[in-house]
Amino acid sequence: MTPSPLFAPRGTLADIEDGVSFMPKFDADGLIPVVAQDATTNEVLMFAWMNAEALARTIETGQAWYWSRSRQSFWRKGDTSGQTQTVREIRIDCDQDALVLKVSVGGDGGACHIGYRSCFFRSVPMGASDKALTLRIETQKISDGHNH
Amino acid sequence: MTPSPLFAPRGTLADIEDGVSFMPKFDADGLIPVVAQDATTNEVLMFAWMNAEALARTIETGQAWYWSRSRQSFWRKGDTSGQTQTVREIRIDCDQDALVLKVSVGGDGGACHIGYRSCFFRSVPMGASDKALTLRIETQKISDGHNH
Repeated sequence: MTPSPLFAPRGTLADIEDGVSFMPKFDADGLIPVVAQDATTNEVLMFAWMNAEALARTIETGQAWYWSRSRQSFWRKGDTSGQTQTVREIRIDCDQDALVLKVSVGGDGGACHIGYRSCFFRSVPMGASDKALTLRIETQKISDGHNH
Repeated sequence: MTPSPLFAPRGTLADIEDGVSFMPKFDADGLIPVVAQDATTNEVLMFAWMNAEALARTIETGQAWYWSRSRQSFWRKGDTSGQTQTVREIRIDCDQDALVLKVSVGGDGGACHIGYRSCFFRSVPMGASDKALTLRIETQKISDGHNH
């Protein structure tokens, strides 16, 4: 694709960290990590990736587009599940190499394809160093699951 | 390093997504992405990476350890800045390839080395498709900045 006019080339460290030009860094695979957070509760819903085109589409349309590494394809969140993500705000970090999306979720309000509201439905027990860990399920499913 | 006894080998998709064995996936560089979130407000503070040893240390000690890709070294958050992160909870996602840490921050309460509370202090304007974007600074600095 043609480079998007939305993104400036990477500048000096001061430009990147403390400036106001949008200079997102895409990794060797052309991807930037994205955290989607509920716009109202701040609950972290999912972690995913965007390439430049998915990010440009998200900025232009206000609907979250991702890049699926496993399927090697664009993925407008909710197209098959109804769990759309209307983007209320996009934040970028100091290094400009990670994004946070504050979203309002459509459909049944979930984000996880196996039926939980958040993909982060399990906690890791702490304190041990010498044994295999058993995760704890922290919430209940809201559905039987969806396709992505 | 010796594989940590904390981590089970990756299992079937059902084991990974819907089970209770802890099977974190480290990428080709041996890293897993980590989102640190304020344990009280759910504000996303930073995005970073752990390798297996950093994750094992975090689980064992309850203090957040990361792996710095730029410095290729372990990094106990707060060692130089005082901005320690006491981990209240660790969550893992359905794919078991991303972590969320709910943390209480020491020192001045910030996480960003250039002086903001959160690294995600800038928002990206939405709606445009044809022009370079100017970020908006959403919060004020709480200090003049720190080393990592």
